[in-house]
Amino acid sequence: MRALLFDVFGTCVDWRTSIIRAAARHGLPPELADAWRAQYQPQLETVRSGARPWVNLDTLHRAGLDRVLDDMRLELPGDDRAALVRAWHELDPWPDTIEGLARLKARFVIAACSNGHIAQSVGLARHAKLPWDAILGAELARAYKPQPEVYLRSVEALGLRPDEVCMVAAHNDDLRAAGALGLRTAFVVRPTQHGPGQTTDLAPEGDHDAVASDLVELAERL
Amino acid sequence: MRALLFDVFGTCVDWRTSIIRAAARHGLPPELADAWRAQYQPQLETVRSGARPWVNLDTLHRAGLDRVLDDMRLELPGDDRAALVRAWHELDPWPDTIEGLARLKARFVIAACSNGHIAQSVGLARHAKLPWDAILGAELARAYKPQPEVYLRSVEALGLRPDEVCMVAAHNDDLRAAGALGLRTAFVVRPTQHGPGQTTDLAPEGDHDAVASDLVELAERL
Repeated sequence: MRALLFDVFGTCVDWRTSIIRAAARHGLPPELADAWRAQYQPQLETVRSGARPWVNLDTLHRAGLDRVLDDMRLELPGDDRAALVRAWHELDPWPDTIEGLARLKARFVIAACSNGHIAQSVGLARHAKLPWDAILGAELARAYKPQPEVYLRSVEALGLRPDEVCMVAAHNDDLRAAGALGLRTAFVVRPTQHGPGQTTDLAPEGDHDAVASDLVELAERL
Repeated sequence: MRALLFDVFGTCVDWRTSIIRAAARHGLPPELADAWRAQYQPQLETVRSGARPWVNLDTLHRAGLDRVLDDMRLELPGDDRAALVRAWHELDPWPDTIEGLARLKARFVIAACSNGHIAQSVGLARHAKLPWDAILGAELARAYKPQPEVYLRSVEALGLRPDEVCMVAAHNDDLRAAGALGLRTAFVVRPTQHGPGQTTDLAPEGDHDAVASDLVELAERL
């Protein structure tokens, strides 16, 4: 194992708490965060299905936000909507993330393999102090996980074989897709990434090279 | 100005001293370094001209090395040739590079915009401790500088306009190409990047937003 690819939203950063706080700054209720995130997969699917050409996550986040504000009958000026989309560039890390990534980076190449685009990932890395060796993922492949090309293009960019690379995520579907392509997999349990009532991804499904409760523990396991 | 794009070979790292040392490890004379580098632009040109599809710099370096060893009538096993190509992933920084980049990173997004590919740039960044926010450049655009798409795709990936980005290089042709596209430019003087008898790029040509003798001085100027 030479390199680790990381999912970011939920795995490295606590998007939900950060988005609830950003919503509050604009006078919006906490329910907005979950309703907005519920638009995430349907919006990605418009690209994955070929219904629209590849556009970056800012564009898809804005489309989802417009839809949710409409559904919730909330008014919000365009500038505030743009600021909320930008809030996804400034999400806070989980308490273990910075130390865990630093320890993992000492022994492995570490790279973001997110559905976030490069500008968003750069902003987020600077804000949350994520010490990536490289930002790979969706924009490099112009596709969205779990489409195979996102994982394969990221592995190729590192000059490695799939079995030399481990995908790290708190989402079983992400790891299932990576594992099917021959990557190694590591599941990190993030039981509150969807809030206190989370019902999915509470435990790993299938076989993994490592399972850990956070990134510091992952550094000890690998 | 929000972000800085950096040329790497010659601007951030002393490729020549490092390659002379690598050649010596394989029993090869110091003249190999300059002869090999003389193959650099002709090899890039095979891609720029469309004569061959985009291949990464390892492939082009190997083609140039094979040619030079042939011209110099030097024998070298394939494994040693591969090791020499890998030496471009482990070049030493100039003495001011690490401090200069750290200071610049405190105020600007900093990214590699090199003709090196991502795997090479990742290896080099880890070896030389170059703290990039992102690795952009040739592989992202599948083109080679000074082709416009390398600069424009890098600027687009940062989500910025060309006039919000400054290209930093020790090569006038690199800056001329970037400036023609509306990027800001900064010339760093590296008078021994081609050895003690260097005759090119000893002084800036044209107008620049900054001229500096090294990256620490550049951090003070910007």
